[in-house]
Amino acid sequence: MSEFVAGGGLINRRAWVKGAGMGAAASFLVPAAATEDWMTHAGQAQNAYGSPSAFSRIRRERTGGHPFAPAAGSSSTPLQKLNGTITPNSLHFERHHSGIPAIDPARHTLTIYGDVEKPIRFKYEDLLAYPMESHVYFLECSGNSFRNTFSKPADMTAGSLNGLVSSAEWSGVPVHYLLDEAGVKPGAQWVVAQGADAAAMSRSIPLQRIMDSVMVALYQNGEPIRPSQGYPMRLFVPGCEGNISIKWLTNLKVQSTPAYTRDETSKYTDLLKDGSAEMFSLEMEVKSVITSPSGKMTLNRKGVYEISGLSWSGAGAIQSVEVSADGGNTWAQAILQSDPKAYALTRFRIPWRWSGGSAVLQSRAMDVRGNIQPTRDLAIQKYSAAGLYHYNGIQSWKVTSDGRVQNVYV
Amino acid sequence: MSEFVAGGGLINRRAWVKGAGMGAAASFLVPAAATEDWMTHAGQAQNAYGSPSAFSRIRRERTGGHPFAPAAGSSSTPLQKLNGTITPNSLHFERHHSGIPAIDPARHTLTIYGDVEKPIRFKYEDLLAYPMESHVYFLECSGNSFRNTFSKPADMTAGSLNGLVSSAEWSGVPVHYLLDEAGVKPGAQWVVAQGADAAAMSRSIPLQRIMDSVMVALYQNGEPIRPSQGYPMRLFVPGCEGNISIKWLTNLKVQSTPAYTRDETSKYTDLLKDGSAEMFSLEMEVKSVITSPSGKMTLNRKGVYEISGLSWSGAGAIQSVEVSADGGNTWAQAILQSDPKAYALTRFRIPWRWSGGSAVLQSRAMDVRGNIQPTRDLAIQKYSAAGLYHYNGIQSWKVTSDGRVQNVYV
Repeated sequence: MSEFVAGGGLINRRAWVKGAGMGAAASFLVPAAATEDWMTHAGQAQNAYGSPSAFSRIRRERTGGHPFAPAAGSSSTPLQKLNGTITPNSLHFERHHSGIPAIDPARHTLTIYGDVEKPIRFKYEDLLAYPMESHVYFLECSGNSFRNTFSKPADMTAGSLNGLVSSAEWSGVPVHYLLDEAGVKPGAQWVVAQGADAAAMSRSIPLQRIMDSVMVALYQNGEPIRPSQGYPMRLFVPGCEGNISIKWLTNLKVQSTPAYTRDETSKYTDLLKDGSAEMFSLEMEVKSVITSPSGKMTLNRKGVYEISGLSWSGAGAIQSVEVSADGGNTWAQAILQSDPKAYALTRFRIPWRWSGGSAVLQSRAMDVRGNIQPTRDLAIQKYSAAGLYHYNGIQSWKVTSDGRVQNVYV
Repeated sequence: MSEFVAGGGLINRRAWVKGAGMGAAASFLVPAAATEDWMTHAGQAQNAYGSPSAFSRIRRERTGGHPFAPAAGSSSTPLQKLNGTITPNSLHFERHHSGIPAIDPARHTLTIYGDVEKPIRFKYEDLLAYPMESHVYFLECSGNSFRNTFSKPADMTAGSLNGLVSSAEWSGVPVHYLLDEAGVKPGAQWVVAQGADAAAMSRSIPLQRIMDSVMVALYQNGEPIRPSQGYPMRLFVPGCEGNISIKWLTNLKVQSTPAYTRDETSKYTDLLKDGSAEMFSLEMEVKSVITSPSGKMTLNRKGVYEISGLSWSGAGAIQSVEVSADGGNTWAQAILQSDPKAYALTRFRIPWRWSGGSAVLQSRAMDVRGNIQPTRDLAIQKYSAAGLYHYNGIQSWKVTSDGRVQNVYV
């Protein structure tokens, strides 16, 4: 039986076990002697809050903003250096409209008002005693991957291009507990959320979505959320564009109509080909990206590699991911990290034998509702040339015969 | 229908929804004016690697070791300040025998030798191309909670007492890929793993366990593992006492017998009542601890609180957790965070109405194999008074009538 599962060198894992191996490791007879410095004297003592190895050179990349306005802009998760599905809090992508406020939780409040029977004001301490839930959710900026809408492909890493998406276990109070306590009046349809940053970032969210799945998040990957993610509290709207998960949440106003705030009219609407604009397109699309091998990496030997990447959808859980190593001519099913969850990043993997020729690596995700990630051509068709949001086209990485990997349009 | 599900004030979540509420939040008519500093000027710019709020005062506590030997000892995860199930990498518990080595991955190797057809030496770069898996697993020091074996209860926080347990998503290469490539000889039964720290920490692990479930972990919660957790690589043995998940892994020697290393004879054996010692008792026991309310906290008002805690078992997934608010007279089923996974921390929660009297809060976990967490009396029965390892007795927190919470034996 052939080890190949599709063209371009995609193989199955059994082939690996049967000796595809690496051929990269050295054979020898005796273990290395303990001569390295770090084996001859005691190492560093532990400290109160740990940090990564200087050798790992792991950090976010600033990918948006202007040097004259350092408080606004964005920075990306270095997807190409990560594995698994959790993003460490220090590497979660950021997008700020007016910088990171240093909020004292003792002075911060959350106010629920508008069309409610009894307006309520919560202190941080109050919320800590409420019933909580925990879920692993992705968060994606609606502008993620926007450079792939440009006419020429940018020669960038997977993180710089596609890293405005991250994942964490978020814990907090389902908003329905708070709204039920305030008593929503008949006729109410929207909730306007506002942050306590200097931009007073504000978005309108359908009441039904709020009652179904939205939380006031207080913890991220176990610890209190970081100032850069909304400390002491943020809204978290699973599956939806990042900016409606309002950081530094301070007001929830219940009303019968959207507020048409500055942040949902001047930005975060989708300009279409015919000149009209789509509003409140909140859910993020089905999407995937290969993180290794990926842009600006170099393969320095022929042989077997594991192709690995991330997939997600705002419509629910990922159903399957296919991978192509020949620019979309043939596809094979990737192995999914067990048990994909709704609104969570799902890691996919498939072994690939690189014979040294040029190749184009692609991934195509499908979610449980049957949505399939489109080609780049299809993905940009709907929008005006100025459309920057909700891009989810297939990411193509070209491997040249000298092993360099780069972003291409095919 | 009563809101109560057991004695001492345990209530159901529906009761909460129906208006148990908090009674703690203020009622008012207009939202707060934007007068706080942080709403009047742009905040801080983002940086390359984030950090927590100074207001959250979140840090590990040093809970073992000697001031004259700062490189040895342990520090605990502050369980009482966390929620969810993931432990951020900076707060993962640590236990070092000779400090944290600063290893250059370009100079580090993993050697497989002993009873194999072809000894192999892997560089870090080699391993990055191998097939990987990701799993959320707990890690617990076999000495966790040892102070509860002492004759008098220590007045400490949940983290200081029980915080030598943490959780992360670990990603790495299943060891069977590497052993298959080396070719294990017939008759081999054990693998001796050794670290590249100055202690050359070494443990013997049954070959069958290695082939079934053990990985060489390269990533923790997405990023390369921290120096304090074994950078550039550690063994990860799910469900088992932490010290056999050898950090800074450099040798795997295949052999027919255990090695009876210093680290598994002078330590990490269990001294029993009759003076004999149990060896290779690797699996950790079924266990749980309420993290809120917990030791040294103070409840500053009567009313409803959410009791919340963590449960885990080295035998597989958690099946159920019961909670008592009356010192074990009556018990109610806690709500489990959906879908408990094998060898993962499982968060449990249940609402509780504190009427202002004294109360004793306890939790009792059961795993899928039917193991039930024992009382403290039962848990210490088997071991000699000097037995410090594998303690898993029920943790009791007393709430006094003035709201203080403290560790007690009942």
